[in-house]
Amino acid sequence: MAVQPVETETIPQAGPLLTLDELRAGLQAVGEERYHHKHPFHLMMHEGQLSRGQLQAWALNRYYYQSIIPIKDSIILSRGPDPVFRRAWRKRVVDHDGDATSEGGIKRWVKLAEATGLDAAQVRAGTGILPATRFAVNEYLNIVRNRSLLEAVASSLTELFSAKLITLRVEKLRQFYPWLSGGLDYFEARLYQAPEDAQFAVNYVYDNAKTRAEQELAIQALRDKCDILWAQLDALYFAYVQPGWPPPGAFRIEDK
Amino acid sequence: MAVQPVETETIPQAGPLLTLDELRAGLQAVGEERYHHKHPFHLMMHEGQLSRGQLQAWALNRYYYQSIIPIKDSIILSRGPDPVFRRAWRKRVVDHDGDATSEGGIKRWVKLAEATGLDAAQVRAGTGILPATRFAVNEYLNIVRNRSLLEAVASSLTELFSAKLITLRVEKLRQFYPWLSGGLDYFEARLYQAPEDAQFAVNYVYDNAKTRAEQELAIQALRDKCDILWAQLDALYFAYVQPGWPPPGAFRIEDK
Repeated sequence: MAVQPVETETIPQAGPLLTLDELRAGLQAVGEERYHHKHPFHLMMHEGQLSRGQLQAWALNRYYYQSIIPIKDSIILSRGPDPVFRRAWRKRVVDHDGDATSEGGIKRWVKLAEATGLDAAQVRAGTGILPATRFAVNEYLNIVRNRSLLEAVASSLTELFSAKLITLRVEKLRQFYPWLSGGLDYFEARLYQAPEDAQFAVNYVYDNAKTRAEQELAIQALRDKCDILWAQLDALYFAYVQPGWPPPGAFRIEDK
Repeated sequence: MAVQPVETETIPQAGPLLTLDELRAGLQAVGEERYHHKHPFHLMMHEGQLSRGQLQAWALNRYYYQSIIPIKDSIILSRGPDPVFRRAWRKRVVDHDGDATSEGGIKRWVKLAEATGLDAAQVRAGTGILPATRFAVNEYLNIVRNRSLLEAVASSLTELFSAKLITLRVEKLRQFYPWLSGGLDYFEARLYQAPEDAQFAVNYVYDNAKTRAEQELAIQALRDKCDILWAQLDALYFAYVQPGWPPPGAFRIEDK
């Protein structure tokens, strides 16, 4: 009956500064431990086991995450005192909000949601999104508002892991859910955007973390961001897979 | 396969001002729909079906909620321009943090957690708390920081419903988990504190909501607060009951 607390991460607050390679290795280790590529909801997706309704729930809820990304990046912009930094970071807002030459990631996500059969207006209104999705996503805003700029930048580093996951996902979505194939532009764009962004952010963290303690705070910010992604899938799984109990007021799947 | 969005609350932004009785009825209706007294985790608790480990997970996670209540109330204090309001609201901070004559609600919750077999230092450190608990609870802080003072006050109104739930819970805890009986001081105190606080807050909302739209915003704040409580139990159920998948880094139950 007794509870065994899991061993928590031991964060050395002193110690030698990590080299760039060691820092990269530390960040990669976080991804191996808790990036959402291993989440059962994704495993089901990649094995073709999700119903159309479950994919709708995913697309609808994930839209809320997508919709706050440029808000999150605008907060980071507002906190960056250096014009050179802001010029580089601004790219992210453009990638998601679009410009004269590109529709942007948010609109591409709406197209994905439409490909699942959802109505674009409903998706944009966020009707029926799980409260747990809002809470997890809003925590991302809390992090970039309330922690240091270094940690805010570091929290973006799940992009280190996303290209591999997206490559697999696009392949599996085409294979198992061919009716979704017209809605995959979002992922195609992220395949080249995310690695560029991650490269910049890793270098920023390495250049601006002046102590080992700051490096460890940056690694912790990445861990916390992974938890934000993971919790979104936990909530989807609980509401729409097993036991299958969406909370009062949330989106319901008609039949699985 | 098609998804049927649930009917969402229709919030009339215009209309006649609700009377005090109508406002109370509107608030009660929210409680009936989505207060956590109906959550399956609580139903199991009240039927004696939870293991000691599951009660530990509950006490540990709920501690995080308890620990931010006086922070939440201090934010509300900081936003109240009226000394009379602040004098009344200050009681809540005292109730939870204690004073020379009372140990306060946070310490009482630690005693409850200890009665489940947890170590007080581990509880206070928050080791192994579910990320989803943090996200839901932090959203409560977001609400009292970012919405109007009226909505911040209204979000406390789950206290309208708590006395009934606590009365039932104390009875069932004594019946099914007698080894917990030494740790129930928290609930005994809340039985008289919460109704006083709810009375004050209902009157405040009635006196300060000058339009129907403001009354409806207050009711929505209560709905959102209910979602925060509900999501905490969803996360506990998912991690520790069914399917029983705590996320990476969270507290594990040794055996159920």
